[in-house]
Amino acid sequence: MEDINLHFTGDFHAIASAHNLLSALLDAHLHHGNALGLDVRRITWPRTIDMNDRALRNIVVGLGGITAGPSREDHYVIIPGSEVMAIMALATGIADLEARLARIVVGFNFTKTPVRASDLKAQGAMTLLLKDALNPNLVQTLEGGPALVHCGPFGNIAHGCNSVVATKLGLTLSDLVLTEAGFGADLGAEKFFDIKCRFAGLEPQAAIIVATVRALKMHGGVKKDQLGTPDPAAVARGCANLQRHIRNVKQFGVPALVALNHFTGDTPAELDAVRAACSAEGVELVPCEVWGKGGEGGVAVAQALLKLLDGTKSAFKPLYDAKLSIKDKIDTIARKIYGADGVRYTAGAERALELIPALGLAEAPVCMAKTQYSFSDDATKLGAPTGFTLNVRDVVASAGAGFVVALAGDIMTMPGLGKSPAAERIRLHPDGTIEGLF
Amino acid sequence: MEDINLHFTGDFHAIASAHNLLSALLDAHLHHGNALGLDVRRITWPRTIDMNDRALRNIVVGLGGITAGPSREDHYVIIPGSEVMAIMALATGIADLEARLARIVVGFNFTKTPVRASDLKAQGAMTLLLKDALNPNLVQTLEGGPALVHCGPFGNIAHGCNSVVATKLGLTLSDLVLTEAGFGADLGAEKFFDIKCRFAGLEPQAAIIVATVRALKMHGGVKKDQLGTPDPAAVARGCANLQRHIRNVKQFGVPALVALNHFTGDTPAELDAVRAACSAEGVELVPCEVWGKGGEGGVAVAQALLKLLDGTKSAFKPLYDAKLSIKDKIDTIARKIYGADGVRYTAGAERALELIPALGLAEAPVCMAKTQYSFSDDATKLGAPTGFTLNVRDVVASAGAGFVVALAGDIMTMPGLGKSPAAERIRLHPDGTIEGLF
Amino acid sequence: MEDINLHFTGDFHAIASAHNLLSALLDAHLHHGNALGLDVRRITWPRTIDMNDRALRNIVVGLGGITAGPSREDHYVIIPGSEVMAIMALATGIADLEARLARIVVGFNFTKTPVRASDLKAQGAMTLLLKDALNPNLVQTLEGGPALVHCGPFGNIAHGCNSVVATKLGLTLSDLVLTEAGFGADLGAEKFFDIKCRFAGLEPQAAIIVATVRALKMHGGVKKDQLGTPDPAAVARGCANLQRHIRNVKQFGVPALVALNHFTGDTPAELDAVRAACSAEGVELVPCEVWGKGGEGGVAVAQALLKLLDGTKSAFKPLYDAKLSIKDKIDTIARKIYGADGVRYTAGAERALELIPALGLAEAPVCMAKTQYSFSDDATKLGAPTGFTLNVRDVVASAGAGFVVALAGDIMTMPGLGKSPAAERIRLHPDGTIEGLF
Amino acid sequence: MEDINLHFTGDFHAIASAHNLLSALLDAHLHHGNALGLDVRRITWPRTIDMNDRALRNIVVGLGGITAGPSREDHYVIIPGSEVMAIMALATGIADLEARLARIVVGFNFTKTPVRASDLKAQGAMTLLLKDALNPNLVQTLEGGPALVHCGPFGNIAHGCNSVVATKLGLTLSDLVLTEAGFGADLGAEKFFDIKCRFAGLEPQAAIIVATVRALKMHGGVKKDQLGTPDPAAVARGCANLQRHIRNVKQFGVPALVALNHFTGDTPAELDAVRAACSAEGVELVPCEVWGKGGEGGVAVAQALLKLLDGTKSAFKPLYDAKLSIKDKIDTIARKIYGADGVRYTAGAERALELIPALGLAEAPVCMAKTQYSFSDDATKLGAPTGFTLNVRDVVASAGAGFVVALAGDIMTMPGLGKSPAAERIRLHPDGTIEGLF
Repeated sequence: MEDINLHFTGDFHAIASAHNLLSALLDAHLHHGNALGLDVRRITWPRTIDMNDRALRNIVVGLGGITAGPSREDHYVIIPGSEVMAIMALATGIADLEARLARIVVGFNFTKTPVRASDLKAQGAMTLLLKDALNPNLVQTLEGGPALVHCGPFGNIAHGCNSVVATKLGLTLSDLVLTEAGFGADLGAEKFFDIKCRFAGLEPQAAIIVATVRALKMHGGVKKDQLGTPDPAAVARGCANLQRHIRNVKQFGVPALVALNHFTGDTPAELDAVRAACSAEGVELVPCEVWGKGGEGGVAVAQALLKLLDGTKSAFKPLYDAKLSIKDKIDTIARKIYGADGVRYTAGAERALELIPALGLAEAPVCMAKTQYSFSDDATKLGAPTGFTLNVRDVVASAGAGFVVALAGDIMTMPGLGKSPAAERIRLHPDGTIEGLF
Repeated sequence: MEDINLHFTGDFHAIASAHNLLSALLDAHLHHGNALGLDVRRITWPRTIDMNDRALRNIVVGLGGITAGPSREDHYVIIPGSEVMAIMALATGIADLEARLARIVVGFNFTKTPVRASDLKAQGAMTLLLKDALNPNLVQTLEGGPALVHCGPFGNIAHGCNSVVATKLGLTLSDLVLTEAGFGADLGAEKFFDIKCRFAGLEPQAAIIVATVRALKMHGGVKKDQLGTPDPAAVARGCANLQRHIRNVKQFGVPALVALNHFTGDTPAELDAVRAACSAEGVELVPCEVWGKGGEGGVAVAQALLKLLDGTKSAFKPLYDAKLSIKDKIDTIARKIYGADGVRYTAGAERALELIPALGLAEAPVCMAKTQYSFSDDATKLGAPTGFTLNVRDVVASAGAGFVVALAGDIMTMPGLGKSPAAERIRLHPDGTIEGLF
Repeated sequence: MEDINLHFTGDFHAIASAHNLLSALLDAHLHHGNALGLDVRRITWPRTIDMNDRALRNIVVGLGGITAGPSREDHYVIIPGSEVMAIMALATGIADLEARLARIVVGFNFTKTPVRASDLKAQGAMTLLLKDALNPNLVQTLEGGPALVHCGPFGNIAHGCNSVVATKLGLTLSDLVLTEAGFGADLGAEKFFDIKCRFAGLEPQAAIIVATVRALKMHGGVKKDQLGTPDPAAVARGCANLQRHIRNVKQFGVPALVALNHFTGDTPAELDAVRAACSAEGVELVPCEVWGKGGEGGVAVAQALLKLLDGTKSAFKPLYDAKLSIKDKIDTIARKIYGADGVRYTAGAERALELIPALGLAEAPVCMAKTQYSFSDDATKLGAPTGFTLNVRDVVASAGAGFVVALAGDIMTMPGLGKSPAAERIRLHPDGTIEGLF
Repeated sequence: MEDINLHFTGDFHAIASAHNLLSALLDAHLHHGNALGLDVRRITWPRTIDMNDRALRNIVVGLGGITAGPSREDHYVIIPGSEVMAIMALATGIADLEARLARIVVGFNFTKTPVRASDLKAQGAMTLLLKDALNPNLVQTLEGGPALVHCGPFGNIAHGCNSVVATKLGLTLSDLVLTEAGFGADLGAEKFFDIKCRFAGLEPQAAIIVATVRALKMHGGVKKDQLGTPDPAAVARGCANLQRHIRNVKQFGVPALVALNHFTGDTPAELDAVRAACSAEGVELVPCEVWGKGGEGGVAVAQALLKLLDGTKSAFKPLYDAKLSIKDKIDTIARKIYGADGVRYTAGAERALELIPALGLAEAPVCMAKTQYSFSDDATKLGAPTGFTLNVRDVVASAGAGFVVALAGDIMTMPGLGKSPAAERIRLHPDGTIEGLF
């Protein structure tokens, strides 16, 4: 567990190296005369680092005049927000990896023609830096069960699924493969279905929607410091949130069940409230006690899943037709999944949208970047909000990954450390035990 | 070989993570109100990256106003120039590593009191990130010989030696340990003796000075594109350079021999010229043919070394007394090793020197950062120049490593990529072979 | 006329000097240790220049480390957007000028306490630099009529009225004083009434609303390149805009008439449309032919004004009670003057609003900064739009001027030059004539 | 006197407007696509402001991405350092002014071809902004004597003389014209002779070298706080400085006398020491008591001057032939005027020198920028230093003014305010009197 949190197999470092090599090649190109005629204001390729480092969110690089310039505005994103991470998660092999890396758009020249990683001849070296990282990592659970841990595009700022190669490896090796698609089913599941399954030709047979009494209570309006107090009425109110998730998953034609992560403090009345909400939507609720009992505690969910797979036939289809315009795709997600009335774009987002067709991305799926705390783009709108407008503040092309990212609300691609960061409390003791990491 | 050049065991990545965590903690501290009263103009802790990225040499971070600021000027250094690299190379174990990390000075507050990593509570998490990297890496040569490859502070910008733990591990496991101290004996050997041996209590028994006909010819005044033409007279002239290296090593009381890396084009007359120069200094010249014949080609050097060890007793002592003032220590190195007439300091270097005693570094050794192409700070002064003044442009405290860095001439701690970087020609072929890496 | 456009009496230069002296004192204070504890991210005092210079809109100053720093983000505004301009326009004399300058808030310290110009001891020197500029400038029209030209806070980004001292001087010297309050009556007139008259105790007796057939046609939906074609129906539609202006002025209790600047191309049918719209609002329409006939052409309007003054009694009162909260004041203007449904604030504007009471500005009037092309904050919404939300993107305290500025939409305080600026075509001929200035 | 110090006739403001208009046109050109292909790192045209504002010394402009960029490094200089000031001081009329403005080099494109103000079509508008400022300003002394005060390029950073038009106007109106050429005769006089007289064809007939006992005492090694104590021996030592100034002036073939500004504390023995030094150089010393007695106190100097003009014939010639290379011209000034052994150039200065011929400035005179406190570039080297090397840190082309500026040592073109700036103590009292301005 510690190894997974500390460098692990170095995949993140390899991604950072490949990503930042492209940045260095780009700035060296500008330094040596900018033969490609890049408009420095329209460079969209950021730098990346595996650190929550707010000070790198907006920077100016290339200061120092003739020997180090030209200067330009730049930005860092965390590695789960790097397009290289998304590319590695979607690549089907080394050749596809290199082809995707070559297609990355780093910016535009003065005539608004895209400039790609291949124009900088970067894809070969980037591929080499990623050659080992592309292999899925096999780890085991505390009980020895096998798990593939590979790639980590976050569901709030990226497409949120582990790698296609890991999933396909799993499908080769076993009868059933379970995969996590996190940060809320409105984000993780939607993008798993619309991006990963669409690209990789996967046919998901069932979905497990995970819920907790605590989260539903919060969606029912209970303050954070009151979540320990039993409140079946609040849970019942909060189930509006769960019910929308259930309906959302059904829109994709995939049979579903709800697994409730059971904690000690949950009362029977609260569980009943959740069960009633699930029944109303025609899906089964199965308590899951893995937290308390290990693998044993998950047997009920596993059996329910097998029953579901036996009894129901998936009719999976993505939410939208890729041939819709980018705006129509965003609109579809906003209305059908989030419950929005419509979408508003900033002037910058509108300008960015105009350049999409020239990138060959007119028929690409959309990757929404949005808070995971609400169906809307406002983290304080709990439950199942309606009547709101989704605000798209920027649109970024991930031409290598093959999708168009829409940044909604004030979602950040580079977080910052708090006033008293966890790092301050971390210690490695002489006996090798670690304090403060979890 | 490829693995060593591509991520290797991830030590560099671990160093970058530990180093940049301190940067992130520092900027988060400024963001949250700067309780330590740091003067942002006197922050000396840079960021680091494993990339030749000129655009990161001088940057402004923290733009974006209230949510991301305050802004400040910052700089990136390559990882061999990171103080964390120097610290890891000098640390004797986890506890010493943590203690050194804690002592790092990140800058000064408005009353010019140093602010340390420990004031930011960074040392615990940094140590944890380095816990595996601190272990030496055992690799084997093409013939299966064991070698420890661990840490890489460059000899031109850092102290230039591999790690103390690797050397001590080697001494435990074998009769003889050979270690490389590169970038010219004026840099690598001086710092190996004066910094590493002094700190680690090592007693080197002999030194092998490595030379090539080609390099001596260049020091004899031959242009780069003419180095293939035999020119014994030029070699003889260039031997002034080798002779000063020999005399320099002798100043440390260590018996020496010269190993001449023999290449096909070297003529007997050229070899004779080098042999004559060595004789004049009373040291043996032994041709080394490892490049052409593998281990076999090095037997003669090995035997000469054993003979030297048998016949001569080392009387190792550092060049200077640590109690001298920093300026006197720099002056001693400049005059006795480089052949300079004196040292000139910029106003900024003078200002920095005034702060050294407050850091507890008055008795610390000095780590010179200087071009490896000349004894002077001017890369074009070949041979054995005299009559020059060494220009110290800045002085930086490495309080964790335990030395004071003097930057001479225009030595850079962040190089840049050329107009046609090697990365452009790197390819990973479908059969797994790599093109363009070497 | 040329003199007025070229340096004139140097008032703008004096304002720039006084304004930028405060900036220099502020940065010198930061440089010398920041004894006032200013949070550089919360410095709100920009620099100013009499130039449309987009590149100065967002800058970083104070680069160069110890000798020139610290660095920080800064902004330039044009001189009509400088608070010093607003202060000079509102000051009643030298003593009041100095007192207002002293009250200027330049930013906040880390405990969010305001820091004022007086904390930097800047008001004395600023007052001295403005001592001559505070005197109104008397010029004459082509026919020799006297006019006071003094101060120029633009109606779209500032309060939009000439100086209080000029107006009071005029009232002392003559029976009737006419003053311009430009950039649309929703901006100029509202701020003249609510800010200048409120502060200076002025009681306006009548208002002349100026209109043109051309502008009304545009508000009726005609494209710019079609405005030369007679279109009485479009004029009639566009009169919705004029009618709202008439009703707005009436809300202040001031009797009004409409002066129509008559141009050659206006047709009788178009004039009739405007007259009908005015009649419907109960105000007289008087064509004004000053453009074609000089003073003679304005006699009809002058006589109509005298008649209006004879026949009607003004009952002037500001639109809102100063004791309302800042948000309520903005809301009142947005609804009653602009026709908005409500007001939306950005997170930054909300944060800024929280600091207003600590500045002693809770009961200050509001100075709206908004496009002059629409009643709304969207320049493309012509006519008399309703059903829109006013977007307030930032709130800035002008503590010296004594009001709170609300920036709506994307109004800019630093414009930029176009691709082919007028400056390129300006010439001074040998005979002293000037080409290209108008 | 106050008026001269406060805005005066607005000439400085006009210069700032003309200068910064060119900056705005330049950045607008970059913004709109950079059709001229300017290399932003090689833009040499700074901005200017009439303020000691350290924070503007090094800045980044053009932040804000697509709507406001591109960003670039920029610098502010004070107005006496503006090339427009130098141009106005050297222009012979409106047509020449416009031609010089047109020739200004703002930077270089990627092929290192100079880009001029005329390429940006800036000269017409700049000329118009300067049309009144080009006229000399006539003021009177306290006793009613006429004086022309016009243009102020400082002798330490610019060519240090008032305008050619003012001098020529004076020559038309009177028999004798005295002009000040300040900041030490090594700077002011050398540049008056080599630049202004050369360009304007002036033939100076005599030179008055001004000295004070106090300054000579300082050059004799007395500390600032001891200058009040009589010390004839120190004065005698310090006269080495005066004697070199006398010899320097004689090199130009111009007869000279020394006027000693007499202050109350000067003792006869000290005066005798100065007189002896002057005698040794064959020039007369005349005490001048203008400070204590007004015009009356200067009669002796005036009579001595008339006598000198009667008795001696000037044989004025510049120090160097304009056809020498720029380096030879700098070398000549350094050796013959400053007493240096030679000149050292930074790499940046060398790079800049290479571009001079392409600018048509190979035969231009050189304008030295250097401290006025020493003959050398080190303000602490008093008296008449020898044996030093002059350090030229940068070379800047003033193609409009027609000379090449060499920046020696650490001379600054943008000073900063101290910890307690004079501005803090300035007051305008109710009776109109001013406190703290002098």
